[in-house]
Amino acid sequence: AMSKSARFGCLCCTYDYETPKTLVIQSTKIGCMFRLVQFVVLLYVVGYVCVVRKAYQERDSVISSVTTKVKGFAYTNTSYMEPRLWDVADYVIPPQGENSFYVLTNVIMTPKQTQSRCPEVRHCLYQICMPLRQTRCGIQTGLCVNYSATVQTCEVLSWCPLEEHTKLPKPALLNAAADFTVLIKNSITYPKFKVNRRSILPHINSSYLKKCEFNRSTDPYCPIFRLKNIASEAGEDFQDMAVKGGILGIFIDWSCDLDWGAHRCFPKYSFRRLDSKNPVNNVAPGYNFRFAKYYQTPDGQESRTLIKAYGIRFDIIVFGTGGKFGIVPTIINLGAALTILGLAPKVCDWILLTCSSKKDLYKKNKITHLNDDDTESVSN
Amino acid sequence: AMSKSARFGCLCCTYDYETPKTLVIQSTKIGCMFRLVQFVVLLYVVGYVCVVRKAYQERDSVISSVTTKVKGFAYTNTSYMEPRLWDVADYVIPPQGENSFYVLTNVIMTPKQTQSRCPEVRHCLYQICMPLRQTRCGIQTGLCVNYSATVQTCEVLSWCPLEEHTKLPKPALLNAAADFTVLIKNSITYPKFKVNRRSILPHINSSYLKKCEFNRSTDPYCPIFRLKNIASEAGEDFQDMAVKGGILGIFIDWSCDLDWGAHRCFPKYSFRRLDSKNPVNNVAPGYNFRFAKYYQTPDGQESRTLIKAYGIRFDIIVFGTGGKFGIVPTIINLGAALTILGLAPKVCDWILLTCSSKKDLYKKNKITHLNDDDTESVSN
Amino acid sequence: AMSKSARFGCLCCTYDYETPKTLVIQSTKIGCMFRLVQFVVLLYVVGYVCVVRKAYQERDSVISSVTTKVKGFAYTNTSYMEPRLWDVADYVIPPQGENSFYVLTNVIMTPKQTQSRCPEVRHCLYQICMPLRQTRCGIQTGLCVNYSATVQTCEVLSWCPLEEHTKLPKPALLNAAADFTVLIKNSITYPKFKVNRRSILPHINSSYLKKCEFNRSTDPYCPIFRLKNIASEAGEDFQDMAVKGGILGIFIDWSCDLDWGAHRCFPKYSFRRLDSKNPVNNVAPGYNFRFAKYYQTPDGQESRTLIKAYGIRFDIIVFGTGGKFGIVPTIINLGAALTILGLAPKVCDWILLTCSSKKDLYKKNKITHLNDDDTESVSN
Repeated sequence: AMSKSARFGCLCCTYDYETPKTLVIQSTKIGCMFRLVQFVVLLYVVGYVCVVRKAYQERDSVISSVTTKVKGFAYTNTSYMEPRLWDVADYVIPPQGENSFYVLTNVIMTPKQTQSRCPEVRHCLYQICMPLRQTRCGIQTGLCVNYSATVQTCEVLSWCPLEEHTKLPKPALLNAAADFTVLIKNSITYPKFKVNRRSILPHINSSYLKKCEFNRSTDPYCPIFRLKNIASEAGEDFQDMAVKGGILGIFIDWSCDLDWGAHRCFPKYSFRRLDSKNPVNNVAPGYNFRFAKYYQTPDGQESRTLIKAYGIRFDIIVFGTGGKFGIVPTIINLGAALTILGLAPKVCDWILLTCSSKKDLYKKNKITHLNDDDTESVSN
Repeated sequence: AMSKSARFGCLCCTYDYETPKTLVIQSTKIGCMFRLVQFVVLLYVVGYVCVVRKAYQERDSVISSVTTKVKGFAYTNTSYMEPRLWDVADYVIPPQGENSFYVLTNVIMTPKQTQSRCPEVRHCLYQICMPLRQTRCGIQTGLCVNYSATVQTCEVLSWCPLEEHTKLPKPALLNAAADFTVLIKNSITYPKFKVNRRSILPHINSSYLKKCEFNRSTDPYCPIFRLKNIASEAGEDFQDMAVKGGILGIFIDWSCDLDWGAHRCFPKYSFRRLDSKNPVNNVAPGYNFRFAKYYQTPDGQESRTLIKAYGIRFDIIVFGTGGKFGIVPTIINLGAALTILGLAPKVCDWILLTCSSKKDLYKKNKITHLNDDDTESVSN
Repeated sequence: AMSKSARFGCLCCTYDYETPKTLVIQSTKIGCMFRLVQFVVLLYVVGYVCVVRKAYQERDSVISSVTTKVKGFAYTNTSYMEPRLWDVADYVIPPQGENSFYVLTNVIMTPKQTQSRCPEVRHCLYQICMPLRQTRCGIQTGLCVNYSATVQTCEVLSWCPLEEHTKLPKPALLNAAADFTVLIKNSITYPKFKVNRRSILPHINSSYLKKCEFNRSTDPYCPIFRLKNIASEAGEDFQDMAVKGGILGIFIDWSCDLDWGAHRCFPKYSFRRLDSKNPVNNVAPGYNFRFAKYYQTPDGQESRTLIKAYGIRFDIIVFGTGGKFGIVPTIINLGAALTILGLAPKVCDWILLTCSSKKDLYKKNKITHLNDDDTESVSN
């Protein structure tokens, strides 16, 4: 029998080791159940947490720098413009971007504009001409002048002649842009892990780079893309987009398991249209902007060519998280798993003491009752 | 009485189930305390961790693409410049940005500069003119020439005539820019959850977009902003800022609880001035940059108009984290909470065995002492 | 002896307090071991988790806005170009970037190009001239014309005259750019913690800013950088890079422990070359792009100066995570640590019951065996 110990006073004695008294039940049923619960928890930890989610890893977000170089030229010979060869300096605006590049595909030009007076065009017609009234075209002078042989409109102070709202060329002026190529150089860093990678992978040599072209199945790591392929990978038709312009996202995913070494970290490219084709809530569909080339006439007056440039902006969006083994997340996940594992006996105990046919026997052996208000009956 | 088991040898037998022997104390006081501690932990888990912090969710950072379109024009008729109408192509520089746009509000122009010789202006005056010495204005020729009728300065090789340090126009030349509007199209992605959203929300139709204007209380989701409203929301006066320029941040917060579906994910706009108004540590207050328009004179010589452009740069800063239920963070938080919950009996035990009036009784029933150096007295 | 309790029925009674029965072993050896394991776990929690990793903190990623202002000018007097002074408006292209700025260092100019016909230059020579065939230079007319006195090449429709593939000037035309300086204004926000900081720190005054220059040891917080120092910090020679151009990353790390207050949050600058110098897999080494200045001749014809601009792009990459005490991560790490701490008795038990010399004694006192299939022998 358990004797009373005489050492109650030094309960917290440094070298005392306290361990729970346990009851071992040799039952196949309850033992099996217990092992099963343990197995499920273990499966979650090893299978899901470690293998699938890699939750034992510390994470870092990628930081990136992108440069692009477009190649190709287009020759246009249409009724509304003189024959003209367009090269990179003509159609890439601005000449260098940071994380995007823009390729002009369609254009409405209004050459020889000067600060002067001219009749309003139809779309901003007003009934009464009022001096100094601002319209969408400029400042009204108050005069009413001939716009055409039959139509009179108010005169405005503005960049004259005004931009006409003509129909957009269709097919697009520079639909040859579909065959332009772009080289995307992307340099990334995971600062926490001191890992640097480039989209031109180390095993790629110059001769391959000179002739390769991105292809999801045959050349997934070639950083040279044909514009029409980008559009078709995004599920769009380049010729259609070229008319009114649009925005295509080039997504570069650098998500990597860095435990295997940075040299096994590769970019994954994907493509998606970023502006809406949905006609319901689409103001200013497509993508265009206005800019001007400024000239000076020999007599010193300023003139400009206003260009409404429709085109496709390619946004290069670099993202990804790198993961590498870290002690803190490992301990956290291990701790959480062990705690869940620690629930197994609680569950089994509950089943044992409520559902088991021999529950009274188990209770008698496992639990001692002590009634606070009736201590004598117990302690004796 | 506990009988000796004959099966000590197979302690680790697979189907053995080991469960701690427990002592149940039927005491209202200690029971209440125990339930209270459990309740507090539960409250933390349910209330704070789940409802307030949503710690059961996995997180992902937003990736974004922005396009902007400014509308409006200004007519200037001042003493220092010819009457002139400014449209988008004139005042938005560069014509398209990636995550920002710039609106010119004030300007110092130096037209008809050519590579030639001219006298230094006052601010870079030197006592002795030395050939080939670099000053802040150009390269000295060594000659001393008339700057004005009374002042002689060194001659320099430079873009001549030099930019004069005249006083900035006040009010700003283009203070009409306050009434310009900008449409901000923002497309975001949470790559981990495959969620895409746009700032033009699906329930917004074209007719609403054509006339709406952002207003925090009445139109919080209209993506069209009046520039003066952006400034006033940021606590600034547009007319003041327009004189020397500045930088305004347009913050778009896409933080979302994606458990309710992506369709309930809306942008939250806020505005803040990003450059310092603090005059103490402010070099180059405001925001300006120099650029030039290049011309060719009929005889083939290059000339330029140097423009010191003061204006407001609007930086569109998109941020936010999306959260969606995830098993790993749930298990981690559950595990941590259960562990903390598991502390409750430890605390109660400690109180029971040290502070309780019946501590000796509890100790006797709970703890069996076994002295390693004096085993006979116990085992017998 | 433990008496049978008569209250088996109300096991789940609300005010019952269940506590494990324990065995205290007074053994120096096992006690020491137990304390040692506890000490190691505690050391990990306090030392590594709290002090080194600060795992009790919530994290937020920095969001940032950057403006730059380059200063300096260069005077060139070479054989292949007229004497010329280059100022900011000439060599910073585009005049303002968002997170980067570009400084022109070398240039191949092709002035007076017009849309016309000219002979192909050597590098795109074809054997047979075919009308409308696209070559790398333009559209062939089908004629064969004199390129020089001895060589005949196909005639093309293009921007004529074509760009000659001349040797790049070496040393670079604008190698004086090494002495240019740049002021980087960086404004950051940690939105979760509502913390805003600027790279011009509050304790820096205007007079210091007017004369300071970044130096890792003496002026680590001066936001004015000399370009050649950026290159040398990145381990590169500016004069070398200037010839073919390149990309330099200016990394600003805002990682901060915000528990000490935002005022102790300072930027850390570092520099690294982002493009590859590796000649093996280097297409288009260095960094260059083509742009054009467009002119109008007095008779209204468009002409342009094509500029192949070699230069150094400086990418300002702002990153960092801010940490501040948070209850959720604290509880998670505490929970995990406590669970690991809870493993200590399991380990000690296992050693006690398998390796200890008195293991039979311990087993007898700690464990009661109950054979499910043979209950009578136990319960009696």
